[in-house]
Amino acid sequence: MKRIVVLGSTGSIGRNALWVAERFPDRFQVVGLGAGRNIALLSEQAARFRPRAVAVLTEELARDLRPRLQPGTEVLAGLEGYQEVACLPEGELVLSAMVGAAGLMPTLAAIRAGKHLALANKETLVMAGALVTGEVRRQRGTLLPVDSEHSAIFQALAGHRREDLKRIVLTASGGPFLNATREELQEVTPAQALAHPNWRMGAKVTVDSATLMNKGLEVVEARWLFDLDVSQIGVAVHPQSIIHSLVEYVDGSVLAQMGIPDMRVPIAYALSYPERLPLDLPPLDLLAVQTLAFLEPDVARFPCLRLAFAACRAGGTMPAVLNAANEVAVEAFLAGRIPFLAIARVVEETLERHRPDLGPAGVEIILEADRQARAEAENVIGGLR
Amino acid sequence: MKRIVVLGSTGSIGRNALWVAERFPDRFQVVGLGAGRNIALLSEQAARFRPRAVAVLTEELARDLRPRLQPGTEVLAGLEGYQEVACLPEGELVLSAMVGAAGLMPTLAAIRAGKHLALANKETLVMAGALVTGEVRRQRGTLLPVDSEHSAIFQALAGHRREDLKRIVLTASGGPFLNATREELQEVTPAQALAHPNWRMGAKVTVDSATLMNKGLEVVEARWLFDLDVSQIGVAVHPQSIIHSLVEYVDGSVLAQMGIPDMRVPIAYALSYPERLPLDLPPLDLLAVQTLAFLEPDVARFPCLRLAFAACRAGGTMPAVLNAANEVAVEAFLAGRIPFLAIARVVEETLERHRPDLGPAGVEIILEADRQARAEAENVIGGLR
Repeated sequence: MKRIVVLGSTGSIGRNALWVAERFPDRFQVVGLGAGRNIALLSEQAARFRPRAVAVLTEELARDLRPRLQPGTEVLAGLEGYQEVACLPEGELVLSAMVGAAGLMPTLAAIRAGKHLALANKETLVMAGALVTGEVRRQRGTLLPVDSEHSAIFQALAGHRREDLKRIVLTASGGPFLNATREELQEVTPAQALAHPNWRMGAKVTVDSATLMNKGLEVVEARWLFDLDVSQIGVAVHPQSIIHSLVEYVDGSVLAQMGIPDMRVPIAYALSYPERLPLDLPPLDLLAVQTLAFLEPDVARFPCLRLAFAACRAGGTMPAVLNAANEVAVEAFLAGRIPFLAIARVVEETLERHRPDLGPAGVEIILEADRQARAEAENVIGGLR
Repeated sequence: MKRIVVLGSTGSIGRNALWVAERFPDRFQVVGLGAGRNIALLSEQAARFRPRAVAVLTEELARDLRPRLQPGTEVLAGLEGYQEVACLPEGELVLSAMVGAAGLMPTLAAIRAGKHLALANKETLVMAGALVTGEVRRQRGTLLPVDSEHSAIFQALAGHRREDLKRIVLTASGGPFLNATREELQEVTPAQALAHPNWRMGAKVTVDSATLMNKGLEVVEARWLFDLDVSQIGVAVHPQSIIHSLVEYVDGSVLAQMGIPDMRVPIAYALSYPERLPLDLPPLDLLAVQTLAFLEPDVARFPCLRLAFAACRAGGTMPAVLNAANEVAVEAFLAGRIPFLAIARVVEETLERHRPDLGPAGVEIILEADRQARAEAENVIGGLR
């Protein structure tokens, strides 16, 4: 029996994780849940899993939630609440699946408390990769990837000598606008950007997939997760999303992990690792898929990918700024305040205005860079009119 | 420094193995070579590698060879000669790459002498899989696959729990007649059958690729190498020969090994395992390949694949008979004695006439079944007129 904490339980990853936990009740006990504002769903989840504690965004939401829950479940609030749930003494494995920069502090707290981590919140590594992986090493903890791409790399590295690794290639579906012209991209609406061809995910990550920023953030994430040099990371557009990523070795051998595009597979693997669960999903049928295609990503139409590589190479606080500016820009796009193509412009301009701290940054320096970048991105947006 | 013996050194696999050994002289010392009749090439190889001993097919060939070699290299002959080279006390790893049933006894001798085996001679496992894998277990030896498909499976199994394995899929290029009609197959000449689109291999295995018998023999080989039930083995036609085979796990994850179609990659891996060698071959460029396709194999046009599955399911001496009849039929086809489509007919008829021994067969029973099947296959060929 593995005792797990799910941070971000009402989001797409969190709900799929609870789907897994519910199907294998003899393997998982859910001891803690963290959610944002969706207390309706959170109270349902709490009724099903009877966790020791739950946490929500504000004290007000906590007050609304308390009367809906059975006795025995403590209700906590805010950043401190999330950190307390992340560090519950009963918890062994924490699934970090909050959206955006908000996931950093609770994830760091869980690692410092000696928990094993299943990491879906890529911002944690994008913002503070050196810090977080350093803490994991110090605690001798494990950091299991949840993203399908990183889970694929993790699986294709297992059983092979690290010294023989040459490079990795992250695959990208290309998103809904793979074949759109620059003119068509100019007119993209939030509704169009939210219609991903292969993967069902939350709004933020779906827009990031459409701009290819998601792949860019994954490049930074992979750099830290697998301790790679940026030059060892490639990206290939693979519209079918069947090959989830690849590892190339020095002898020319390439190991790839494949499967149907269903997030429950990598989520279940991170939860049950090193074992696998019989998920009873439709198997990958290559004879039905028939062809797998591969294309070079077009960084002229999708400059976010280029910006992410550049920020990753620059290092220091640059990836945190990339991430913060992107969060602000995506929110502005979803609110109808800026056009689709302006997302990349906001990020680029914010990066240019940032004076990076390239030293080994503590969490305060990172959070300060994040705050400044958000303000600066708003300035850039204001100047776009 | 690994001391290796190469049986079948003048064949395609053997020459490629020596290519590898020559490029990494600080890693490999070639202590023994075995060849058939090509003493011109063998004497060149002996001059380059200065082995302790070499073996050729007959005492007559040995007499011709002796004056061509430097002192210090012993020249042996016949089955006993091959076995002696296979069991040289200096040898640590024996690459078994003789063609056909002739490879069985030297391979078995090497295993019994406690050598590690790199196995390219698939007939060894097709004929005597239970016996050979039993000996390997008893000797706590290793049996490393050299076939690209089995090397792929071996690599995709590494690092993952055996209990979580669901099935494997061997990929097949489909050979030169993938899209030929039955009528066109009727007219196929030896020269056409020897023109494989992707792989450069010896004559026997190239014809086997054209009939899909090669894939059938690989099914039997995989059954023993990885201790699978026949029902866990599938075959997919994949004309590009980029994905060398796949392993499916219970959670729906599929691990695949890929690469350019070049036998030097799996040969080098078997020789240097668990390390990999920087072979300096052109890397796999998926962006250049662009698409990977998958098709169901057509057992109506390529009945050899169906026959191999049936023989594998039946077990006992049936796979040995399948193999023997096929060797006789392929030789008859290459000699212009029977048409291409008759290869399958000879094999099927020979299998039907055989009364299988389904118990745990010793090597004498297997060799007797092999002898009888060869005679019976000749009878079938005689009756075709």
